[in-house]
Amino acid sequence: MNQKTEPAVVAVGGGKGLSTMLRGLKKHTKRLTAIVTMADDGGGSGKLRDELGMAPPGDVRRCLQALANTEPTMEELLSYRFSEGGLAGQSLGNLFLAALNDIYGSFYGAVQSLGEVLAITGRVLPVTAEDVRLLAFLDDGTEVFGESKIKNALKQAAESRIRQVKLLPENPPALKDSIQAIETADLIVLGPGSLYTSIIPNLLTDGVSQAILASDAVKLYVLNVATEDGETDNFSASDHVRALFEHGGDRLFDLCLANSEPFPDLVAENHRGVGGRQTEVDEEALSSLGVTTLARPVLEYGDGFAHHDPDKLAAEIMYIFRDKSPTRVYTR
Amino acid sequence: MNQKTEPAVVAVGGGKGLSTMLRGLKKHTKRLTAIVTMADDGGGSGKLRDELGMAPPGDVRRCLQALANTEPTMEELLSYRFSEGGLAGQSLGNLFLAALNDIYGSFYGAVQSLGEVLAITGRVLPVTAEDVRLLAFLDDGTEVFGESKIKNALKQAAESRIRQVKLLPENPPALKDSIQAIETADLIVLGPGSLYTSIIPNLLTDGVSQAILASDAVKLYVLNVATEDGETDNFSASDHVRALFEHGGDRLFDLCLANSEPFPDLVAENHRGVGGRQTEVDEEALSSLGVTTLARPVLEYGDGFAHHDPDKLAAEIMYIFRDKSPTRVYTR
Repeated sequence: MNQKTEPAVVAVGGGKGLSTMLRGLKKHTKRLTAIVTMADDGGGSGKLRDELGMAPPGDVRRCLQALANTEPTMEELLSYRFSEGGLAGQSLGNLFLAALNDIYGSFYGAVQSLGEVLAITGRVLPVTAEDVRLLAFLDDGTEVFGESKIKNALKQAAESRIRQVKLLPENPPALKDSIQAIETADLIVLGPGSLYTSIIPNLLTDGVSQAILASDAVKLYVLNVATEDGETDNFSASDHVRALFEHGGDRLFDLCLANSEPFPDLVAENHRGVGGRQTEVDEEALSSLGVTTLARPVLEYGDGFAHHDPDKLAAEIMYIFRDKSPTRVYTR
Repeated sequence: MNQKTEPAVVAVGGGKGLSTMLRGLKKHTKRLTAIVTMADDGGGSGKLRDELGMAPPGDVRRCLQALANTEPTMEELLSYRFSEGGLAGQSLGNLFLAALNDIYGSFYGAVQSLGEVLAITGRVLPVTAEDVRLLAFLDDGTEVFGESKIKNALKQAAESRIRQVKLLPENPPALKDSIQAIETADLIVLGPGSLYTSIIPNLLTDGVSQAILASDAVKLYVLNVATEDGETDNFSASDHVRALFEHGGDRLFDLCLANSEPFPDLVAENHRGVGGRQTEVDEEALSSLGVTTLARPVLEYGDGFAHHDPDKLAAEIMYIFRDKSPTRVYTR
């Protein structure tokens, strides 16, 4: 494929899910944009946020690594985490971004510059330049401030669910580049990734949901393969989609790519051990929400847990895309 | 010059002096080896040494940066120092080496790997793989433990001088590669750099002085342009050479490259302000030590202080080398 005939793909999310998918997608198109949540406030990112007053670098760093085309040493360096001393738990790639943030005077500049150093395929864009935090309202009336606090709060209130999440400040303007990328996309992919803490925060910026709703691109949601303890306990596919529509707008997308393989027993047991289970794909409920289910085999079990396989996932996404847009010409 | 006809040059030292010289020398030969002191225990290096139990990375990092051939962003990143939070004062390049030290399981491996990432000209070698500290004996009987403590101790005992320095453990074996580099060198350069804390520590490892003494290479000492407060107060050229011979062996070298230009008044005043002055070149005393003085204009005054200009210094070194070895053929 030459560049002109490659589709413009926008992937919206955060966390490991997004970076896994990018590893696969970069083999199919160079016109790839990752739009990344900026609401993280835990771990190494949270520490840098508090100490240096910078944007949380972790989600962006994972995407940059996934899209990098430099030698393995460089990627190993970026993902290295210190295990001792005052730096314990901190990743060297985060410190890279912290240094560049100071050198360039903006997180956006830092991300573009590290992208150049890593010779990445495509672009990585923070969804917003605002200093945003996540606020969750549980259905028992509790309010939880801070992304990193949400899971624990829900684990303690076992019967509760998240009713709504908000960004503080509310409706922060999305980065112009992010909106432009969505407006000119041939394919928009939401997820995979933590529903309330990685995907939905992007939809709460001013401009992103509106641009997705207005776009005539192929719009696909990649459903998580398993539920997450303290975030989506017992959520079916339609529960995921309903939460997305409630936060981002009704019929934000009309396609859902779900995993079609039942977990092997051992894998199912491992997920039960961490409070999760295979996501139930309730196709009829999805259909009544206006969403077509596309069930495909997209898993790998390398560490005993079910994950999206980057190459299988990307191949299915591109297959679906071509199938849904047979007459599209990519010359924008 | 093609590689085969380029001389094999070994530069021994540490600190900013060595890295400045390397910036110049790399334009003259690719067969360049920097042998670097490992006795630093202050600043960011000292902190990593204490917290992670690793070798002090600072001196090696400066050499790697000087020899790097990557894009400017990479060098800017390596020399970046954090100014806030728990990382204040730490350099990102040091953290690189800390990560690689853990990944490769050896400091030597870390240094070679970062050298590859930076596509450096030549090689950088830690002088020893041992965990060494510097111990200074002042002529008033005081003992000072730790390189970073020496200057302050001497500033407090204004009339004292360093009588001797030792490494602890004593006579640590020099790295085999370091000795081999000296054995096959066409030109060996000592200094410039802090006399007792950057240059002499290399001579106290088991093998380095012996290899230099046994070598028939051109052997040149680059004299510091100014004295250093708390280390070489009022030292003349012959005082420097005498200290080197006392620690590394008599007639360790027979050439001394000194600066020939008197400091401009303003520069002299700036040096006085930090307790230093232009190093007096006592040619007769040097001659009685068996050392020929070569006085050349090698200075730059960019920041108001006198420093070796990398290009002038390297050009004079190579000129002297060619002059002293007219019949040498570089084919080893």
